[in-house]
Amino acid sequence: MSATESHLPIEETVVIVGVGMIGGSLAAAIKRRGLARKVIGVGRDLSRIESARSLGLIDEAVVDLAAALEQATLAVFCTPVDRVADDVRRAAAIVASNDRKSSQKPPEKELLFTDVGSVKASICSELVDIPKFVGSHPIAGSHKQGFEAANPELFQGRICVVTPMPATESPQTDRVERLWRAVGMETVRMSPEAHDSALAMTSHLPHVVAASLASTLTEQNRLFTGTGFRDTTRIAAGDSDLWAGILMGNATEVVRGIRQLEERLADFRSALAAGDQGKIRELLEEGKQSRRSLDETRRT
Amino acid sequence: MSATESHLPIEETVVIVGVGMIGGSLAAAIKRRGLARKVIGVGRDLSRIESARSLGLIDEAVVDLAAALEQATLAVFCTPVDRVADDVRRAAAIVASNDRKSSQKPPEKELLFTDVGSVKASICSELVDIPKFVGSHPIAGSHKQGFEAANPELFQGRICVVTPMPATESPQTDRVERLWRAVGMETVRMSPEAHDSALAMTSHLPHVVAASLASTLTEQNRLFTGTGFRDTTRIAAGDSDLWAGILMGNATEVVRGIRQLEERLADFRSALAAGDQGKIRELLEEGKQSRRSLDETRRT
Repeated sequence: MSATESHLPIEETVVIVGVGMIGGSLAAAIKRRGLARKVIGVGRDLSRIESARSLGLIDEAVVDLAAALEQATLAVFCTPVDRVADDVRRAAAIVASNDRKSSQKPPEKELLFTDVGSVKASICSELVDIPKFVGSHPIAGSHKQGFEAANPELFQGRICVVTPMPATESPQTDRVERLWRAVGMETVRMSPEAHDSALAMTSHLPHVVAASLASTLTEQNRLFTGTGFRDTTRIAAGDSDLWAGILMGNATEVVRGIRQLEERLADFRSALAAGDQGKIRELLEEGKQSRRSLDETRRT
Repeated sequence: MSATESHLPIEETVVIVGVGMIGGSLAAAIKRRGLARKVIGVGRDLSRIESARSLGLIDEAVVDLAAALEQATLAVFCTPVDRVADDVRRAAAIVASNDRKSSQKPPEKELLFTDVGSVKASICSELVDIPKFVGSHPIAGSHKQGFEAANPELFQGRICVVTPMPATESPQTDRVERLWRAVGMETVRMSPEAHDSALAMTSHLPHVVAASLASTLTEQNRLFTGTGFRDTTRIAAGDSDLWAGILMGNATEVVRGIRQLEERLADFRSALAAGDQGKIRELLEEGKQSRRSLDETRRT
Protein backbone atom coordinates (compact mmCIF):
# COMPACT_ATOMS: atom_id res chain seq x y z
CA MET A 1 0.00 0.00 0.00
CA SER A 2 1.44 3.39 -0.93
CA ALA A 3 1.68 6.23 1.57
CA THR A 4 -1.06 8.20 -0.14
CA GLU A 5 -3.50 5.34 0.35
CA SER A 6 -2.87 4.89 4.06
CA HIS A 7 -5.39 7.35 5.51
CA LEU A 8 -7.16 4.81 7.71
CA PRO A 9 -9.89 3.94 8.46
CA ILE A 10 -11.47 3.84 5.01
CA GLU A 11 -15.01 3.12 6.30
CA GLU A 12 -16.84 4.28 9.42
CA THR A 13 -18.86 1.20 10.34
CA VAL A 14 -18.81 -2.07 8.40
CA VAL A 15 -21.65 -4.49 9.02
CA ILE A 16 -20.92 -8.15 8.26
CA VAL A 17 -24.14 -10.10 7.76
CA GLY A 18 -23.36 -13.78 8.31
CA VAL A 19 -20.23 -14.30 10.39
CA GLY A 20 -19.05 -17.69 9.12
CA MET A 21 -15.66 -18.60 7.74
CA ILE A 22 -15.65 -15.91 5.04
CA GLY A 23 -17.55 -13.24 7.02
CA GLY A 24 -15.38 -13.89 10.07
CA SER A 25 -12.20 -13.71 8.01
CA LEU A 26 -13.29 -10.42 6.45
CA ALA A 27 -14.16 -8.97 9.86
CA ALA A 28 -10.80 -10.07 11.24
CA ALA A 29 -8.96 -8.66 8.22
CA ILE A 30 -10.71 -5.30 8.58
CA LYS A 31 -9.97 -5.12 12.29
CA ARG A 32 -6.34 -6.21 12.00
CA ARG A 33 -5.71 -3.51 9.39
CA GLY A 34 -7.76 -0.81 11.11
CA LEU A 35 -9.91 -0.33 8.00
CA ALA A 36 -13.10 0.65 9.84
CA ARG A 37 -13.87 2.43 13.10
CA LYS A 38 -16.27 -0.34 13.99
CA VAL A 39 -17.18 -3.84 12.71
CA ILE A 40 -20.65 -5.09 13.59
CA GLY A 41 -21.48 -8.75 13.07
CA VAL A 42 -25.08 -9.75 12.37
CA GLY A 43 -26.14 -13.34 12.98
CA ARG A 44 -29.33 -15.25 13.54
CA ASP A 45 -28.01 -17.11 16.58
CA LEU A 46 -27.11 -14.71 19.42
CA SER A 47 -24.85 -17.15 21.26
CA ARG A 48 -22.88 -17.92 18.08
CA ILE A 49 -22.44 -14.29 17.13
CA GLU A 50 -21.51 -13.44 20.75
CA SER A 51 -18.78 -16.10 20.55
CA ALA A 52 -17.42 -14.41 17.43
CA ARG A 53 -17.34 -11.13 19.37
CA SER A 54 -15.59 -12.68 22.35
CA LEU A 55 -12.95 -14.08 19.96
CA GLY A 56 -12.35 -10.49 18.87
CA LEU A 57 -13.48 -10.96 15.26
CA ILE A 58 -16.13 -8.24 15.56
CA ASP A 59 -16.72 -5.24 17.87
CA GLU A 60 -20.46 -5.69 18.27
CA ALA A 61 -22.68 -8.77 18.03
CA VAL A 62 -26.22 -8.11 16.83
CA VAL A 63 -29.22 -10.17 15.73
CA ASP A 64 -31.30 -7.19 14.62
CA LEU A 65 -30.27 -6.23 11.09
CA ALA A 66 -32.20 -2.92 11.34
CA ALA A 67 -30.25 -1.79 14.41
CA ALA A 68 -26.94 -2.68 12.75
CA LEU A 69 -27.82 -0.84 9.55
CA GLU A 70 -28.56 2.42 11.39
CA GLN A 71 -24.84 2.87 11.96
CA ALA A 72 -23.50 1.23 8.80
CA THR A 73 -21.56 2.83 5.97
CA LEU A 74 -20.92 -0.52 4.26
CA ALA A 75 -22.83 -3.78 4.71
CA VAL A 76 -21.22 -6.97 3.41
CA PHE A 77 -23.60 -9.93 2.97
CA CYS A 78 -21.75 -13.17 3.66
CA THR A 79 -24.84 -15.39 3.72
CA PRO A 80 -25.30 -18.42 1.40
CA VAL A 81 -25.73 -17.50 -2.28
CA ASP A 82 -29.39 -18.51 -2.34
CA ARG A 83 -30.14 -16.09 0.52
CA VAL A 84 -28.06 -13.05 -0.48
CA ALA A 85 -30.62 -11.39 -2.74
CA ASP A 86 -33.43 -11.69 -0.15
CA ASP A 87 -31.15 -10.41 2.62
CA VAL A 88 -30.02 -7.41 0.61
CA ARG A 89 -33.59 -6.62 -0.44
CA ARG A 90 -34.71 -6.76 3.20
CA ALA A 91 -31.82 -4.46 4.18
CA ALA A 92 -32.70 -2.01 1.43
CA ALA A 93 -36.31 -1.90 2.67
CA ILE A 94 -35.14 -1.26 6.24
CA VAL A 95 -32.88 1.56 5.13
CA ALA A 96 -35.63 3.17 3.04
CA SER A 97 -37.95 3.01 6.03
CA ASN A 98 -35.28 4.38 8.43
CA ASP A 99 -34.60 7.26 6.04
CA ARG A 100 -38.29 8.22 6.04
CA LYS A 101 -38.64 8.02 9.85
CA SER A 102 -35.33 9.43 10.93
CA SER A 103 -34.74 13.12 11.56
CA GLN A 104 -31.05 12.58 12.30
CA LYS A 105 -28.64 13.84 9.69
CA PRO A 106 -27.52 11.22 7.18
CA PRO A 107 -24.10 9.55 7.65
CA GLU A 108 -21.25 11.25 5.85
CA LYS A 109 -20.96 8.34 3.48
CA GLU A 110 -23.80 6.83 1.56
CA LEU A 111 -24.55 3.28 2.75
CA LEU A 112 -23.46 0.64 0.25
CA PHE A 113 -24.18 -3.07 0.04
CA THR A 114 -21.94 -5.78 -1.31
CA ASP A 115 -21.68 -9.55 -0.94
CA VAL A 116 -19.22 -12.41 -1.26
CA GLY A 117 -21.35 -14.84 -3.27
CA SER A 118 -19.71 -17.40 -5.58
CA VAL A 119 -22.38 -16.80 -8.23
CA LYS A 120 -23.21 -13.35 -9.49
CA ALA A 121 -25.69 -13.29 -12.38
CA SER A 122 -28.67 -14.59 -10.40
CA ILE A 123 -27.96 -12.33 -7.42
CA CYS A 124 -27.25 -9.21 -9.47
CA SER A 125 -30.29 -9.64 -11.71
CA GLU A 126 -32.54 -9.97 -8.67
CA LEU A 127 -31.05 -6.75 -7.24
CA VAL A 128 -30.95 -4.70 -10.43
CA ASP A 129 -33.31 -2.13 -8.91
CA ILE A 130 -31.15 -1.61 -5.83
CA PRO A 131 -28.42 0.83 -6.86
CA LYS A 132 -26.77 0.64 -3.44
CA PHE A 133 -25.71 -2.94 -4.26
CA VAL A 134 -22.43 -3.82 -5.99
CA GLY A 135 -21.71 -7.54 -6.30
CA SER A 136 -18.39 -8.99 -5.17
CA HIS A 137 -16.76 -12.39 -5.16
CA PRO A 138 -13.50 -12.66 -3.27
CA ILE A 139 -11.93 -15.86 -4.69
CA ALA A 140 -10.59 -17.15 -1.42
CA GLY A 141 -11.96 -19.89 0.70
CA SER A 142 -11.61 -23.07 2.58
CA HIS A 143 -13.60 -26.25 2.95
CA LYS A 144 -13.70 -25.45 6.66
CA GLN A 145 -16.82 -23.90 8.08
CA GLY A 146 -17.70 -21.42 10.77
CA PHE A 147 -15.95 -18.36 12.20
CA GLU A 148 -13.69 -20.66 14.20
CA ALA A 149 -11.83 -21.19 10.91
CA ALA A 150 -11.60 -17.44 10.23
CA ASN A 151 -8.24 -16.22 8.97
CA PRO A 152 -7.47 -12.48 8.67
CA GLU A 153 -4.95 -13.24 5.90
CA LEU A 154 -7.39 -15.36 3.85
CA PHE A 155 -7.68 -12.68 1.16
CA GLN A 156 -4.01 -11.77 0.87
CA GLY A 157 -2.72 -12.03 -2.70
CA ARG A 158 -6.02 -13.33 -4.07
CA ILE A 159 -8.36 -12.05 -6.74
CA CYS A 160 -11.71 -10.37 -6.03
CA VAL A 161 -14.19 -10.03 -8.86
CA VAL A 162 -16.46 -6.97 -8.59
CA THR A 163 -19.55 -6.94 -10.80
CA PRO A 164 -21.10 -3.47 -11.09
CA MET A 165 -24.41 -3.25 -12.91
CA PRO A 166 -25.12 -0.79 -15.74
CA ALA A 167 -26.77 1.59 -13.26
CA THR A 168 -23.96 1.38 -10.69
CA GLU A 169 -22.11 4.66 -10.28
CA SER A 170 -18.37 4.44 -10.56
CA PRO A 171 -17.56 5.95 -7.11
CA GLN A 172 -19.66 3.18 -5.53
CA THR A 173 -17.70 0.47 -7.33
CA ASP A 174 -14.49 2.26 -6.35
CA ARG A 175 -15.44 2.16 -2.68
CA VAL A 176 -16.20 -1.55 -2.74
CA GLU A 177 -12.97 -2.28 -4.61
CA ARG A 178 -11.02 -0.19 -2.11
CA LEU A 179 -12.14 -2.45 0.73
CA TRP A 180 -11.03 -5.62 -1.09
CA ARG A 181 -7.72 -4.11 -2.02
CA ALA A 182 -7.19 -2.98 1.54
CA VAL A 183 -7.54 -6.58 2.79
CA GLY A 184 -4.84 -7.61 0.31
CA MET A 185 -6.75 -8.54 -2.86
CA GLU A 186 -6.35 -7.64 -6.48
CA THR A 187 -9.69 -6.56 -7.95
CA VAL A 188 -11.09 -7.33 -11.40
CA ARG A 189 -14.28 -5.73 -12.76
CA MET A 190 -16.46 -7.82 -15.02
CA SER A 191 -20.09 -8.53 -15.81
CA PRO A 192 -21.98 -10.99 -13.57
CA GLU A 193 -22.41 -13.28 -16.59
CA ALA A 194 -18.71 -13.31 -17.48
CA HIS A 195 -17.94 -14.04 -13.83
CA ASP A 196 -20.31 -17.00 -13.73
CA SER A 197 -18.99 -18.41 -16.98
CA ALA A 198 -15.39 -18.31 -15.70
CA LEU A 199 -16.14 -19.56 -12.19
CA ALA A 200 -18.18 -22.47 -13.54
CA MET A 201 -14.92 -23.82 -14.94
CA THR A 202 -12.48 -22.77 -12.22
CA SER A 203 -14.53 -23.46 -9.09
CA HIS A 204 -17.95 -25.04 -9.60
CA LEU A 205 -16.89 -27.81 -11.99
CA PRO A 206 -13.93 -28.78 -9.74
CA HIS A 207 -16.39 -29.11 -6.87
CA VAL A 208 -18.65 -31.44 -8.87
CA VAL A 209 -15.59 -33.44 -9.94
CA ALA A 210 -14.21 -33.73 -6.41
CA ALA A 211 -17.59 -34.83 -5.03
CA SER A 212 -18.07 -37.34 -7.86
CA LEU A 213 -14.61 -38.80 -7.40
CA ALA A 214 -14.97 -38.97 -3.61
CA SER A 215 -18.24 -40.86 -3.96
CA THR A 216 -16.58 -43.58 -6.07
CA LEU A 217 -14.43 -44.53 -3.06
CA THR A 218 -15.53 -47.75 -1.37
CA GLU A 219 -14.83 -48.48 2.25
CA GLN A 220 -12.40 -51.27 1.40
CA ASN A 221 -10.43 -49.02 -0.95
CA ARG A 222 -9.88 -46.30 1.64
CA LEU A 223 -6.67 -47.94 2.80
CA PHE A 224 -5.17 -47.54 -0.67
CA THR A 225 -5.59 -43.79 -1.05
CA GLY A 226 -2.52 -41.60 -1.14
CA THR A 227 -1.97 -37.87 -1.19
CA GLY A 228 -3.19 -37.74 -4.81
CA PHE A 229 -6.69 -38.94 -4.00
CA ARG A 230 -6.80 -36.76 -0.92
CA ASP A 231 -5.82 -33.57 -2.74
CA THR A 232 -8.08 -34.25 -5.70
CA THR A 233 -11.12 -34.71 -3.45
CA ARG A 234 -10.30 -32.24 -0.65
CA ILE A 235 -12.96 -29.67 -1.59
CA ALA A 236 -15.66 -32.37 -1.53
CA ALA A 237 -15.60 -31.95 2.26
CA GLY A 238 -17.26 -28.54 1.88
CA ASP A 239 -20.77 -27.71 3.06
CA SER A 240 -23.38 -29.50 0.91
CA ASP A 241 -26.19 -26.98 1.39
CA LEU A 242 -23.93 -24.08 0.52
CA TRP A 243 -22.61 -25.81 -2.59
CA ALA A 244 -26.02 -27.04 -3.73
CA GLY A 245 -27.05 -23.38 -3.75
CA ILE A 246 -23.96 -22.33 -5.70
CA LEU A 247 -24.34 -25.05 -8.34
CA MET A 248 -28.07 -24.36 -8.74
CA GLY A 249 -27.34 -20.65 -9.03
CA ASN A 250 -25.07 -21.31 -12.01
CA ALA A 251 -26.67 -24.49 -13.37
CA THR A 252 -26.47 -23.77 -17.10
CA GLU A 253 -22.77 -22.94 -17.04
CA VAL A 254 -21.95 -25.86 -14.74
CA VAL A 255 -23.76 -28.30 -17.04
CA ARG A 256 -21.72 -26.90 -19.92
CA GLY A 257 -18.55 -27.45 -17.87
CA ILE A 258 -19.48 -31.03 -16.99
CA ARG A 259 -19.97 -31.76 -20.70
CA GLN A 260 -16.50 -30.41 -21.48
CA LEU A 261 -14.99 -32.64 -18.83
CA GLU A 262 -16.94 -35.65 -20.07
CA GLU A 263 -15.45 -35.14 -23.53
CA ARG A 264 -11.94 -35.27 -22.07
CA LEU A 265 -12.72 -38.37 -20.03
CA ALA A 266 -14.10 -40.03 -23.15
CA ASP A 267 -10.84 -39.22 -24.95
CA PHE A 268 -8.89 -41.00 -22.21
CA ARG A 269 -11.29 -43.92 -22.27
CA SER A 270 -11.02 -44.36 -26.05
CA ALA A 271 -7.22 -44.11 -26.00
CA LEU A 272 -6.99 -46.66 -23.17
CA ALA A 273 -9.38 -49.05 -24.88
CA ALA A 274 -7.40 -48.70 -28.12
CA GLY A 275 -4.07 -49.19 -26.32
CA ASP A 276 -2.87 -45.89 -27.77
CA GLN A 277 -0.10 -44.94 -25.35
CA GLY A 278 1.00 -42.00 -27.53
CA LYS A 279 -2.47 -40.46 -27.31
CA ILE A 280 -2.60 -41.00 -23.55
CA ARG A 281 0.77 -39.29 -23.18
CA GLU A 282 -0.55 -36.41 -25.30
CA LEU A 283 -3.69 -36.01 -23.14
CA LEU A 284 -1.61 -36.14 -19.96
CA GLU A 285 0.87 -33.66 -21.37
CA GLU A 286 -1.93 -31.22 -22.18
CA GLY A 287 -3.15 -31.39 -18.58
CA LYS A 288 0.35 -31.08 -17.24
CA GLN A 289 1.22 -27.99 -19.31
CA SER A 290 -2.06 -26.37 -18.31
CA ARG A 291 -1.48 -27.12 -14.64
CA ARG A 292 2.12 -25.93 -14.73
CA SER A 293 1.18 -22.67 -16.46
CA LEU A 294 -0.97 -21.99 -13.44
CA ASP A 295 1.99 -22.24 -11.07
CA GLU A 296 4.00 -19.99 -13.34
CA THR A 297 1.29 -17.31 -13.72
CA ARG A 298 0.14 -16.90 -10.15
CA ARG A 299 2.21 -15.73 -7.27
CA THR A 300 0.35 -17.57 -4.54
CA MET B 1 9.85 -50.50 16.24
CA SER B 2 10.13 -52.87 19.15
CA ALA B 3 13.48 -53.67 20.76
CA THR B 4 13.53 -57.19 19.35
CA GLU B 5 13.31 -55.82 15.82
CA SER B 6 16.18 -53.40 16.15
CA HIS B 7 19.12 -55.63 15.11
CA LEU B 8 20.34 -53.38 12.34
CA PRO B 9 21.26 -53.55 9.52
CA ILE B 10 18.60 -55.85 8.11
CA GLU B 11 20.23 -56.17 4.67
CA GLU B 12 23.87 -56.28 3.62
CA THR B 13 23.82 -54.38 0.34
CA VAL B 14 20.73 -52.85 -1.21
CA VAL B 15 20.88 -51.93 -4.88
CA ILE B 16 18.47 -49.22 -6.03
CA VAL B 17 17.94 -49.37 -9.78
CA GLY B 18 16.65 -45.98 -10.91
CA VAL B 19 17.49 -43.22 -8.45
CA GLY B 20 14.66 -40.77 -9.07
CA MET B 21 12.25 -39.30 -6.55
CA ILE B 22 11.08 -42.69 -5.21
CA GLY B 23 14.39 -44.53 -5.55
CA GLY B 24 16.26 -41.61 -4.01
CA SER B 25 13.78 -41.40 -1.14
CA LEU B 26 14.11 -45.12 -0.46
CA ALA B 27 17.91 -44.92 -0.54
CA ALA B 28 17.85 -41.97 1.84
CA ALA B 29 15.38 -43.73 4.17
CA ILE B 30 17.57 -46.85 4.28
CA LYS B 31 20.71 -44.83 4.97
CA ARG B 32 19.12 -42.60 7.60
CA ARG B 33 17.86 -45.65 9.49
CA GLY B 34 21.01 -47.74 9.01
CA LEU B 35 19.01 -50.56 7.41
CA ALA B 36 21.80 -51.74 5.09
CA ARG B 37 25.60 -51.81 5.26
CA LYS B 38 25.72 -50.30 1.81
CA VAL B 39 23.31 -48.68 -0.69
CA ILE B 40 24.35 -48.79 -4.34
CA GLY B 41 22.51 -46.64 -6.84
CA VAL B 42 22.33 -47.76 -10.46
CA GLY B 43 21.53 -45.21 -13.14
CA ARG B 44 21.97 -44.83 -16.88
CA ASP B 45 23.49 -41.37 -16.67
CA LEU B 46 26.79 -41.40 -14.73
CA SER B 47 26.80 -37.67 -13.96
CA ARG B 48 23.23 -37.83 -12.60
CA ILE B 49 23.87 -40.84 -10.43
CA GLU B 50 27.17 -39.31 -9.22
CA SER B 51 25.19 -36.22 -8.14
CA ALA B 52 22.89 -38.45 -6.10
CA ARG B 53 25.99 -39.94 -4.45
CA SER B 54 27.52 -36.54 -3.70
CA LEU B 55 24.21 -35.54 -2.07
CA GLY B 56 24.67 -38.54 0.22
CA LEU B 57 21.58 -40.44 -0.96
CA ILE B 58 23.65 -43.51 -1.96
CA ASP B 59 27.07 -44.89 -1.00
CA GLU B 60 28.13 -45.95 -4.50
CA ALA B 61 27.11 -44.69 -7.93
CA VAL B 62 27.18 -47.29 -10.69
CA VAL B 63 26.03 -47.53 -14.31
CA ASP B 64 26.85 -51.23 -14.66
CA LEU B 65 23.96 -53.27 -13.28
CA ALA B 66 26.06 -56.49 -13.33
CA ALA B 67 28.75 -54.98 -11.10
CA ALA B 68 26.15 -53.71 -8.63
CA LEU B 69 24.37 -57.07 -8.48
CA GLU B 70 27.56 -58.92 -7.55
CA GLN B 71 27.36 -57.41 -4.09
CA ALA B 72 23.58 -57.15 -3.70
CA THR B 73 21.34 -58.93 -1.21
CA LEU B 74 18.26 -56.96 -2.26
CA ALA B 75 17.69 -55.09 -5.52
CA VAL B 76 14.81 -52.63 -5.68
CA PHE B 77 13.74 -51.62 -9.19
CA CYS B 78 12.48 -48.04 -9.17
CA THR B 79 12.29 -47.66 -12.94
CA PRO B 80 9.08 -46.70 -14.81
CA VAL B 81 6.38 -49.40 -14.71
CA ASP B 82 6.74 -50.24 -18.39
CA ARG B 83 10.45 -50.96 -17.88
CA VAL B 84 10.40 -52.88 -14.57
CA ALA B 85 9.77 -56.36 -16.00
CA ASP B 86 12.55 -56.04 -18.60
CA ASP B 87 14.96 -54.66 -16.01
CA VAL B 88 14.26 -57.46 -13.54
CA ARG B 89 14.54 -60.09 -16.27
CA ARG B 90 17.90 -58.66 -17.32
CA ALA B 91 19.09 -58.70 -13.70
CA ALA B 92 17.94 -62.29 -13.25
CA ALA B 93 19.93 -63.30 -16.35
CA ILE B 94 23.03 -61.51 -15.05
CA VAL B 95 22.76 -63.22 -11.70
CA ALA B 96 22.31 -66.67 -13.27
CA SER B 97 25.38 -66.03 -15.42
CA ASN B 98 27.41 -64.73 -12.43
CA ASP B 99 26.46 -67.79 -10.40
CA ARG B 100 27.76 -70.06 -13.15
CA LYS B 101 31.01 -68.15 -13.62
CA SER B 102 31.79 -67.19 -10.07
CA SER B 103 33.93 -69.26 -7.75
CA GLN B 104 33.41 -66.89 -4.85
CA LYS B 105 31.17 -68.09 -2.07
CA PRO B 106 27.55 -66.99 -2.37
CA PRO B 107 26.31 -64.11 -0.23
CA GLU B 108 24.88 -65.11 3.13
CA LYS B 109 21.46 -64.03 2.04
CA GLU B 110 19.79 -65.07 -1.14
CA LEU B 111 19.47 -62.14 -3.57
CA LEU B 112 15.88 -60.89 -3.88
CA PHE B 113 14.26 -58.51 -6.33
CA THR B 114 11.39 -56.16 -5.68
CA ASP B 115 10.03 -53.01 -7.31
CA VAL B 116 7.92 -49.93 -6.55
CA GLY B 117 5.61 -50.00 -9.58
CA SER B 118 2.13 -48.51 -9.38
CA VAL B 119 0.69 -51.41 -11.39
CA LYS B 120 1.29 -54.99 -10.42
CA ALA B 121 -0.62 -57.54 -12.53
CA SER B 122 1.23 -56.84 -15.78
CA ILE B 123 4.65 -56.79 -14.08
CA CYS B 124 4.05 -59.86 -11.93
CA SER B 125 2.63 -61.95 -14.76
CA GLU B 126 5.67 -61.15 -16.91
CA LEU B 127 7.95 -62.26 -14.06
CA VAL B 128 6.03 -65.32 -12.93
CA ASP B 129 9.02 -67.56 -13.77
CA ILE B 130 11.42 -65.50 -11.65
CA PRO B 131 10.94 -66.68 -8.06
CA LYS B 132 13.44 -64.13 -6.74
CA PHE B 133 10.92 -61.37 -7.55
CA VAL B 134 8.28 -60.16 -5.10
CA GLY B 135 6.22 -57.18 -6.30
CA SER B 136 5.79 -54.09 -4.11
CA HIS B 137 3.95 -50.82 -4.37
CA PRO B 138 4.72 -48.29 -1.68
CA ILE B 139 1.74 -45.89 -1.84
CA ALA B 140 3.71 -42.73 -1.35
CA GLY B 141 4.69 -40.21 -3.90
CA SER B 142 4.87 -36.73 -5.16
CA HIS B 143 4.27 -34.99 -8.47
CA LYS B 144 7.87 -33.81 -8.18
CA GLN B 145 10.52 -35.62 -10.16
CA GLY B 146 14.17 -36.55 -9.72
CA PHE B 147 16.30 -37.42 -6.71
CA GLU B 148 16.54 -33.73 -5.87
CA ALA B 149 12.98 -34.15 -4.48
CA ALA B 150 13.96 -37.23 -2.44
CA ASN B 151 12.61 -37.34 1.08
CA PRO B 152 13.78 -39.97 3.60
CA GLU B 153 10.44 -39.67 5.43
CA LEU B 154 8.32 -40.13 2.29
CA PHE B 155 7.19 -43.59 3.37
CA GLN B 156 6.48 -42.85 7.03
CA GLY B 157 2.97 -43.86 8.04
CA ARG B 158 1.97 -44.94 4.53
CA ILE B 159 0.76 -48.26 3.13
CA CYS B 160 2.89 -50.61 1.05
CA VAL B 161 1.15 -53.34 -0.94
CA VAL B 162 3.24 -56.49 -1.43
CA THR B 163 2.06 -58.93 -4.09
CA PRO B 164 3.67 -62.37 -3.75
CA MET B 165 2.94 -64.84 -6.50
CA PRO B 166 1.72 -68.39 -5.90
CA ALA B 167 5.30 -69.69 -6.22
CA THR B 168 6.78 -67.06 -3.88
CA GLU B 169 8.12 -68.55 -0.67
CA SER B 170 6.91 -66.92 2.50
CA PRO B 171 10.37 -66.00 3.90
CA GLN B 172 11.06 -64.03 0.72
CA THR B 173 7.87 -62.04 1.12
CA ASP B 174 8.73 -61.53 4.78
CA ARG B 175 12.10 -60.05 3.88
CA VAL B 176 10.63 -57.62 1.41
CA GLU B 177 7.93 -56.59 3.88
CA ARG B 178 10.54 -56.10 6.59
CA LEU B 179 12.29 -53.47 4.49
CA TRP B 180 9.08 -51.50 3.90
CA ARG B 181 8.14 -51.67 7.54
CA ALA B 182 11.63 -50.55 8.52
CA VAL B 183 11.21 -47.36 6.46
CA GLY B 184 7.97 -46.64 8.32
CA MET B 185 5.27 -48.31 6.23
CA GLU B 186 2.41 -50.61 7.04
CA THR B 187 2.39 -53.58 4.66
CA VAL B 188 -0.61 -55.30 3.11
CA ARG B 189 -0.37 -58.54 1.12
CA MET B 190 -2.74 -59.01 -1.77
CA SER B 191 -2.86 -60.41 -5.29
CA PRO B 192 -1.54 -58.26 -8.15
CA GLU B 193 -5.06 -58.19 -9.63
CA ALA B 194 -6.72 -57.00 -6.40
CA HIS B 195 -4.03 -54.33 -6.12
CA ASP B 196 -4.66 -53.06 -9.63
CA SER B 197 -8.41 -53.03 -9.14
CA ALA B 198 -8.11 -50.92 -5.97
CA LEU B 199 -5.42 -48.58 -7.26
CA ALA B 200 -7.37 -47.92 -10.47
CA MET B 201 -9.93 -46.17 -8.25
CA THR B 202 -7.68 -44.58 -5.64
CA SER B 203 -4.77 -43.41 -7.78
CA HIS B 204 -5.09 -43.93 -11.55
CA LEU B 205 -8.62 -42.55 -11.95
CA PRO B 206 -7.77 -39.44 -9.87
CA HIS B 207 -4.83 -38.83 -12.20
CA VAL B 208 -7.06 -39.04 -15.30
CA VAL B 209 -9.56 -36.72 -13.60
CA ALA B 210 -6.94 -34.17 -12.57
CA ALA B 211 -5.42 -34.12 -16.07
CA SER B 212 -8.86 -33.82 -17.69
CA LEU B 213 -9.90 -31.00 -15.40
CA ALA B 214 -6.59 -29.17 -15.83
CA SER B 215 -6.95 -29.32 -19.61
CA THR B 216 -10.34 -27.57 -19.48
CA LEU B 217 -8.63 -24.45 -18.11
CA THR B 218 -8.29 -21.65 -20.65
CA GLU B 219 -5.60 -19.02 -20.44
CA GLN B 220 -8.12 -16.27 -19.68
CA ASN B 221 -9.65 -18.28 -16.83
CA ARG B 222 -6.34 -18.85 -15.03
CA LEU B 223 -6.81 -15.66 -13.06
CA PHE B 224 -10.01 -17.01 -11.53
CA THR B 225 -8.63 -20.21 -10.04
CA GLY B 226 -8.50 -20.57 -6.29
CA THR B 227 -7.06 -23.21 -3.98
CA GLY B 228 -9.88 -25.61 -4.96
CA PHE B 229 -8.87 -25.80 -8.60
CA ARG B 230 -5.22 -25.98 -7.67
CA ASP B 231 -5.65 -28.86 -5.22
CA THR B 232 -8.00 -30.79 -7.49
CA THR B 233 -5.51 -30.65 -10.38
CA ARG B 234 -2.21 -30.78 -8.49
CA ILE B 235 -1.28 -34.33 -9.54
CA ALA B 236 -1.78 -33.42 -13.20
CA ALA B 237 1.69 -31.85 -12.99
CA GLY B 238 3.23 -35.34 -12.76
CA ASP B 239 5.44 -36.90 -15.41
CA SER B 240 3.40 -37.72 -18.56
CA ASP B 241 5.57 -40.61 -19.77
CA LEU B 242 5.52 -42.26 -16.37
CA TRP B 243 1.77 -41.93 -16.05
CA ALA B 244 1.05 -43.01 -19.62
CA GLY B 245 2.84 -46.23 -18.71
CA ILE B 246 0.88 -46.65 -15.49
CA LEU B 247 -2.50 -46.04 -17.14
CA MET B 248 -1.69 -48.37 -20.04
CA GLY B 249 -0.52 -51.02 -17.59
CA ASN B 250 -3.92 -50.99 -15.91
CA ALA B 251 -6.10 -49.96 -18.84
CA THR B 252 -9.09 -52.23 -18.28
CA GLU B 253 -9.55 -51.24 -14.65
CA VAL B 254 -8.99 -47.55 -15.39
CA VAL B 255 -11.63 -47.61 -18.14
CA ARG B 256 -14.02 -49.19 -15.65
CA GLY B 257 -13.20 -46.41 -13.17
CA ILE B 258 -13.76 -43.67 -15.74
CA ARG B 259 -17.18 -45.15 -16.49
CA GLN B 260 -18.10 -45.06 -12.82
CA LEU B 261 -17.11 -41.43 -12.61
CA GLU B 262 -19.03 -40.59 -15.77
CA GLU B 263 -22.17 -42.03 -14.20
CA ARG B 264 -21.80 -39.71 -11.23
CA LEU B 265 -21.16 -36.70 -13.43
CA ALA B 266 -24.28 -37.57 -15.44
CA ASP B 267 -26.26 -37.65 -12.17
CA PHE B 268 -25.09 -34.12 -11.38
CA ARG B 269 -25.84 -32.98 -14.91
CA SER B 270 -29.38 -34.37 -14.83
CA ALA B 271 -30.12 -32.90 -11.42
CA LEU B 272 -28.82 -29.48 -12.48
CA ALA B 273 -30.79 -29.53 -15.72
CA ALA B 274 -33.93 -30.52 -13.79
CA GLY B 275 -33.34 -27.83 -11.14
CA ASP B 276 -33.47 -30.54 -8.48
CA GLN B 277 -31.59 -28.87 -5.61
CA GLY B 278 -32.47 -31.70 -3.21
CA LYS B 279 -30.82 -34.26 -5.48
CA ILE B 280 -27.74 -32.07 -5.89
CA ARG B 281 -27.46 -31.73 -2.12
CA GLU B 282 -27.75 -35.51 -1.82
CA LEU B 283 -24.99 -36.11 -4.38
CA LEU B 284 -22.76 -33.56 -2.67
CA GLU B 285 -23.49 -35.07 0.72
CA GLU B 286 -22.48 -38.51 -0.51
CA GLY B 287 -19.14 -37.16 -1.69
CA LYS B 288 -18.66 -35.21 1.52
CA GLN B 289 -19.33 -38.19 3.79
CA SER B 290 -16.99 -40.34 1.74
CA ARG B 291 -14.25 -37.71 1.83
CA ARG B 292 -14.66 -37.11 5.55
CA SER B 293 -14.54 -40.82 6.35
CA LEU B 294 -11.10 -40.78 4.77
CA ASP B 295 -9.84 -38.17 7.21
CA GLU B 296 -11.30 -40.12 10.07
CA THR B 297 -9.83 -43.49 9.02
CA ARG B 298 -6.29 -42.52 8.14
CA ARG B 299 -3.73 -41.07 10.45
CA THR B 300 -1.71 -39.24 7.87
